[in-house]
Amino acid sequence: MGRPPTPLLSTDRIASAAMDLVRATGEFTMPDLARKLKVSPSSLYNHVSGRGQIVELLRERAMSEVQLPDDQPDRPWAEAVADILRSYRRSYARYPRLIPLLTAYAVNSSHAIRMYNMLAVTLHRAGFDAADTLRAITLMDCFVLGSALDLAAPEEPWESGAEVGPELAAALATGAPTPARADDAFEYGLAVLLRGLQPGG
Amino acid sequence: MGRPPTPLLSTDRIASAAMDLVRATGEFTMPDLARKLKVSPSSLYNHVSGRGQIVELLRERAMSEVQLPDDQPDRPWAEAVADILRSYRRSYARYPRLIPLLTAYAVNSSHAIRMYNMLAVTLHRAGFDAADTLRAITLMDCFVLGSALDLAAPEEPWESGAEVGPELAAALATGAPTPARADDAFEYGLAVLLRGLQPGG
Repeated sequence: MGRPPTPLLSTDRIASAAMDLVRATGEFTMPDLARKLKVSPSSLYNHVSGRGQIVELLRERAMSEVQLPDDQPDRPWAEAVADILRSYRRSYARYPRLIPLLTAYAVNSSHAIRMYNMLAVTLHRAGFDAADTLRAITLMDCFVLGSALDLAAPEEPWESGAEVGPELAAALATGAPTPARADDAFEYGLAVLLRGLQPGG
Repeated sequence: MGRPPTPLLSTDRIASAAMDLVRATGEFTMPDLARKLKVSPSSLYNHVSGRGQIVELLRERAMSEVQLPDDQPDRPWAEAVADILRSYRRSYARYPRLIPLLTAYAVNSSHAIRMYNMLAVTLHRAGFDAADTLRAITLMDCFVLGSALDLAAPEEPWESGAEVGPELAAALATGAPTPARADDAFEYGLAVLLRGLQPGG
């Protein structure tokens, strides 16, 4: 009867511990991570090059449920984009606290690059020039990440007080409880985006 | 020569200390806040009702530079909305770490309600029904908060590695350094949104 074996340190265990810290506190530091894993900070560096690599491991997890559709050149571009963005939002909505951390670091994970490649190919084929492709992808990113945060919002995202005017009160009264409200607003926003995006415009 | 007078505890000092904690760590707890202010947790409750009120004080600060245009019923609705959203993004971009904290709490600050009232009045007057007014405001919120996070992104938000395909590489090559890239993408996204939003649609 010895003590239970200590699980070996691995990039996977390091990423899981960092994710736990982010979910609880919104942040992780290398010293906190070492303390949580009961190892010295220097032993972390035997497995990862530093904080930046851990952030990319967390990005891989946030992206892990993104399903990319098959590339079908004949399919309308807006349908392919809609599929990607729906899946992107669902995957990120699992980790809202991670979002500002991920946006503060350059994207360098295979799964993320695969998604951005597919968006770029789809937009290029639809006739968007290179500059508009970058702008459109940035817009999609901002919309999806904002929407993932909205899905984590409270049931009633606005309190109805005396200062709420009649037009805003009428609008708020139409809202179903979250997540139905957030899902409905996301589909509306997606339709607005796809209507407003104009290839070669 | 006595010790320097300890500044009196006030809601303003409490909000400043909470903001410092959020900027440094992404989060604040009441015990951390008490420690930072060198007071007991219970004395915080002589000034604020709890964490929720402090979050609203932080929201007021994030909104403090939002400039609302004069209400001009004859002005095209899209111009009024564009003015509000530009100012909303600039004000929030000062505090990107605050964004997931604010979206996790119901909005209950006067400054924020004033802005949402103005958006609702403008959309209602333009012919949006109550349900679409809520959806459109939610879309604007998601877009603005995502764009405020984008403004805090690194100079090169994507790393160019071997996995980046030719279409994505061409798009990335058109991007100016941040903040010019983020500003340009925001204006493009704003135009897309305003083109895609259809009253009574």
